[in-house]
Amino acid sequence: MVEYDLKSLLEKLRDEKPLVHNITNYVVMNFTANTLLAMGASPVMAHAADEVEEMVSLASALVINIGTLSKHWIESMLKAGHRANELGVPIILDPVGSGATSLRTNTFRNLVKELRLSVVRGNGSEILSIASDSIRTKGVETAHGAEQALETAREVATKIDSVAAITGPVDLITDGKRVIRCSNGHPLLGSVTGTGCAATATIAAFASVTNDPLEATSAGLAFFGLAGEHAGTRTSSPGSFIISLLDALYEITPAEFQAQARLEMI
Amino acid sequence: MVEYDLKSLLEKLRDEKPLVHNITNYVVMNFTANTLLAMGASPVMAHAADEVEEMVSLASALVINIGTLSKHWIESMLKAGHRANELGVPIILDPVGSGATSLRTNTFRNLVKELRLSVVRGNGSEILSIASDSIRTKGVETAHGAEQALETAREVATKIDSVAAITGPVDLITDGKRVIRCSNGHPLLGSVTGTGCAATATIAAFASVTNDPLEATSAGLAFFGLAGEHAGTRTSSPGSFIISLLDALYEITPAEFQAQARLEMI
Amino acid sequence: MVEYDLKSLLEKLRDEKPLVHNITNYVVMNFTANTLLAMGASPVMAHAADEVEEMVSLASALVINIGTLSKHWIESMLKAGHRANELGVPIILDPVGSGATSLRTNTFRNLVKELRLSVVRGNGSEILSIASDSIRTKGVETAHGAEQALETAREVATKIDSVAAITGPVDLITDGKRVIRCSNGHPLLGSVTGTGCAATATIAAFASVTNDPLEATSAGLAFFGLAGEHAGTRTSSPGSFIISLLDALYEITPAEFQAQARLEMI
Repeated sequence: MVEYDLKSLLEKLRDEKPLVHNITNYVVMNFTANTLLAMGASPVMAHAADEVEEMVSLASALVINIGTLSKHWIESMLKAGHRANELGVPIILDPVGSGATSLRTNTFRNLVKELRLSVVRGNGSEILSIASDSIRTKGVETAHGAEQALETAREVATKIDSVAAITGPVDLITDGKRVIRCSNGHPLLGSVTGTGCAATATIAAFASVTNDPLEATSAGLAFFGLAGEHAGTRTSSPGSFIISLLDALYEITPAEFQAQARLEMI
Repeated sequence: MVEYDLKSLLEKLRDEKPLVHNITNYVVMNFTANTLLAMGASPVMAHAADEVEEMVSLASALVINIGTLSKHWIESMLKAGHRANELGVPIILDPVGSGATSLRTNTFRNLVKELRLSVVRGNGSEILSIASDSIRTKGVETAHGAEQALETAREVATKIDSVAAITGPVDLITDGKRVIRCSNGHPLLGSVTGTGCAATATIAAFASVTNDPLEATSAGLAFFGLAGEHAGTRTSSPGSFIISLLDALYEITPAEFQAQARLEMI
Repeated sequence: MVEYDLKSLLEKLRDEKPLVHNITNYVVMNFTANTLLAMGASPVMAHAADEVEEMVSLASALVINIGTLSKHWIESMLKAGHRANELGVPIILDPVGSGATSLRTNTFRNLVKELRLSVVRGNGSEILSIASDSIRTKGVETAHGAEQALETAREVATKIDSVAAITGPVDLITDGKRVIRCSNGHPLLGSVTGTGCAATATIAAFASVTNDPLEATSAGLAFFGLAGEHAGTRTSSPGSFIISLLDALYEITPAEFQAQARLEMI
């Protein structure tokens, strides 16, 4: 078992309602904002190069998500990221679809090179794409098992000095040395768009209330996965699941979170 | 009590299904469109500088919302707004996040200066931002109580000759002389993204069927708040609340609206 | 009755989980992605000119939807479309709002001229807009009955050598010679934004598993309409309907699809 005080962490989050600045993709903006609100954080979406530096200076964490990329947005990601680094605001990166196109893979690599990231979260293919040109994702689907990608994740985490999280049926979280396995989750999360992106935002919310990125990532993925489990007890179809998931993010108490998180050091 | 004939107004709206042109932010586009459809209006979203003048000429009202701003969009907002002014199409402005960044504050001020607006709706901080540089919003959250902002709202409304509405737990609506308080609403509206933006669109829908902006704003905020109340009787969590809110916008009858609106002149 | 093996087609779809590349509008991106996931396909949204050619080469079908248009996006639509034509990837076009503004009408006509399309789906006004300047849509609403537009649809289908589908209370599908009528559907589909766009994506999903565009269009519209019918048995309000619709897209079995599709050659 991992000895995190998840109860206090969630209490702190709901008490402080930290502002999370998201530069994220069009598909998931609404769902991400509702995820953050439901769990108790305050979302803001802003992408204009003219304002991202100012906005990130108000925020407790920054999410960069490359899911619907274009050139102007990359410029804004870098601007916001550089300012976040200056201010010590943690950056959580979601390299959606990296490996599928050169634009995404190159952007992922460039963001890793230019910015000091706290956490990178993706599926196996996305995380692997930073290491090898020979790997291609099938869109945003996982083509490689999380386990297979673990060795690469360790190397990536070590190389970029951040936490790397590979999510899938089981999530693996590593800072290059320690590896935590998170077993919370539900198969229907794979039938709803943006659940990976929302999980990334959840990590950012927890990164607003702890300085330990391994703890924030573990808490975020356990919390989001647990909400999926709660939703899965109420429905077995994806439309209702979306709604029950948002409900669960709001309803799970700090004590339930502490008791039901399934995190183990491996 | 305010003596508006809300029953007839909602009947007229559902009969005419007015086209509301929205230049709004990415986060809330879907929810705003569904809000307008559910209540009985016809939404269209169009932002290209090449087409906004033509689109607004087909519409009964124009919503301008600065929630995810960038330079090209500001150009389109001005183009659409100038054409709306020429045609007498009412403009409803939602200065999302004004006060949080210079881009937003300056855009709000510029839109107020360039266009003849029918209604401006925001939270206290957003409305106050037009008057003072010293006020900063915490993202899109309300940092200042609605009551505190009332004096400024009166001044703003007088200065720009439009209706100013400050929404929060209680909504205050003023044309600079008269002040109407709307008590409809529900706390869960604060746990769902885009409810303020959707309330703005609701005002625009009513502005399509009455020439009195004070009446349109009162009707819109009372109707949206009442839908929140109805939703709040069915659920106490935000995911289900979103769905029940859309259901209520569709289900509330003109007679219920008349009976349950809580508007008073103060 | 039309003798399509819809049971096998849906089984194949759910087995292969084809990747559908969508260049679609902001309003419906989330709902479209969830529609495709719920029915068993894999969505990807990508619009950058720098990556659309690479992305479409991974896909089994391409959706082009002009619902929130701007110049950069048109360039990407053409790039993706040309590459799709080279690779034999079927293109399904949704000319949202064509007829309402010159930008949309001209874009529709230009896409038809530049690309070899498999299917064009729209309401009567949108389809008619390719033939005549004198017809104006009221936003994205149907101003002309589907029946009236049938003759034009036949001409359009013949001229551009593709399938044209006019959707409304009853859908008409034609390749210029044959005409199929689809009677599946539900009135509440008109009270939810993006149902037309999602129906288009559903056609694209089926076009990934059959080479016959008339069959793909018939299957897509019957399947989406049937999901609407299932949803309509569970609720009579639009918020709940959205959720029940997504649930139904996931739940309808291949045997139910075969038994309940209402397609007839006329």
